Amino acid sequence: MAKEKAPDKRDRILEAALRVFAQRGFYNAKVSEIAREAGVADGTIYLYFENKDDLLIQLFEEKMEVIISRLRLVLEQCGGNALDRLRRMVHSHLALAAEHPVLAEFITVELRQSAKFVREYENPRFQEYLTILRDLVEEGQREGLLRPGLDSRLLVRMIFGSLDELLLTLTLASSSRSIDLKAAAECVTDVFLHGMSANP
Amino acid sequence: MAKEKAPDKRDRILEAALRVFAQRGFYNAKVSEIAREAGVADGTIYLYFENKDDLLIQLFEEKMEVIISRLRLVLEQCGGNALDRLRRMVHSHLALAAEHPVLAEFITVELRQSAKFVREYENPRFQEYLTILRDLVEEGQREGLLRPGLDSRLLVRMIFGSLDELLLTLTLASSSRSIDLKAAAECVTDVFLHGMSANP
Repeated sequence: MAKEKAPDKRDRILEAALRVFAQRGFYNAKVSEIAREAGVADGTIYLYFENKDDLLIQLFEEKMEVIISRLRLVLEQCGGNALDRLRRMVHSHLALAAEHPVLAEFITVELRQSAKFVREYENPRFQEYLTILRDLVEEGQREGLLRPGLDSRLLVRMIFGSLDELLLTLTLASSSRSIDLKAAAECVTDVFLHGMSANP
Repeated sequence: MAKEKAPDKRDRILEAALRVFAQRGFYNAKVSEIAREAGVADGTIYLYFENKDDLLIQLFEEKMEVIISRLRLVLEQCGGNALDRLRRMVHSHLALAAEHPVLAEFITVELRQSAKFVREYENPRFQEYLTILRDLVEEGQREGLLRPGLDSRLLVRMIFGSLDELLLTLTLASSSRSIDLKAAAECVTDVFLHGMSANP
């Protein structure tokens, strides 16, 4: 059975699922629609995925893996101190709205559904993303740049929450009311870096 | 027909819908389950609501109306300057996790679904909530307490995003990993008020 599984077919199904989920929403999307979009038979999907939930989770894992490895590279090349890298991470997060709006919508909307409905799924990639952010904050605290008394777990949720809400707004906004991506990134870093600063 | 509509029956259906949506999620929830939970016949629901989407929207409207009128009262009684009232609003937002966890889960999870799937619904109550927050920020800027150069539209989305993410975490967290509500509220006000302060 394994021999029949071509990796490009799996990728095609995942890309089709991303488009169908974004268009129709996870709960409205039918496996048969994903099959049609991918140009495969309905049954083929079950060679690669147990069910629609499994497809959602594997899609997440895969996309987050790409986002995370790109982010790690960007942070490595960034140099500077923890605050410079934090600033870089904020820009990268919001840039997704321009670079890959379908993926941005999928992450901002479906991730939250997943938090509720797939409780047994711990979402390790999302945890990994938060850990990168937390490491930067704690490095800044150790370096004496950020106030050590602030709880890094809370800070990370706050920063992620702000980014997630702005990414959602950037992604869903009609062009007429759209906010400026660069201005948003600068506002986030400005407020958070001032707010957490050890040198007020 | 209007004479047959008892207001308490409508309320019972709305309360039942809140519980069923929270348990099963909006998309999995069936109108027949809501009817059973409310102790009414399936058809009765359609005397009050056009369909499940209409039920979701009216439930939102009603719950947000209560939250908003309570918030306005709390802010009126708070006294002090814009920053004191901002601090009070942050506490009120997060307190929902302890005071009404089912409603908190509904708002943090379903509100976002609504943003995507009910695009034609402008969600006026949510806009009203953001406007209260924006008025406080702009009042703080006019009073010289907050930096005037910061874009209040972006600040409001950032603050709301942080609160929403923390409320989600507080609501979904298993008790073992739960974060402290009061500490979370203090961290939000501390970081944002420092971050936006006109007097660094």
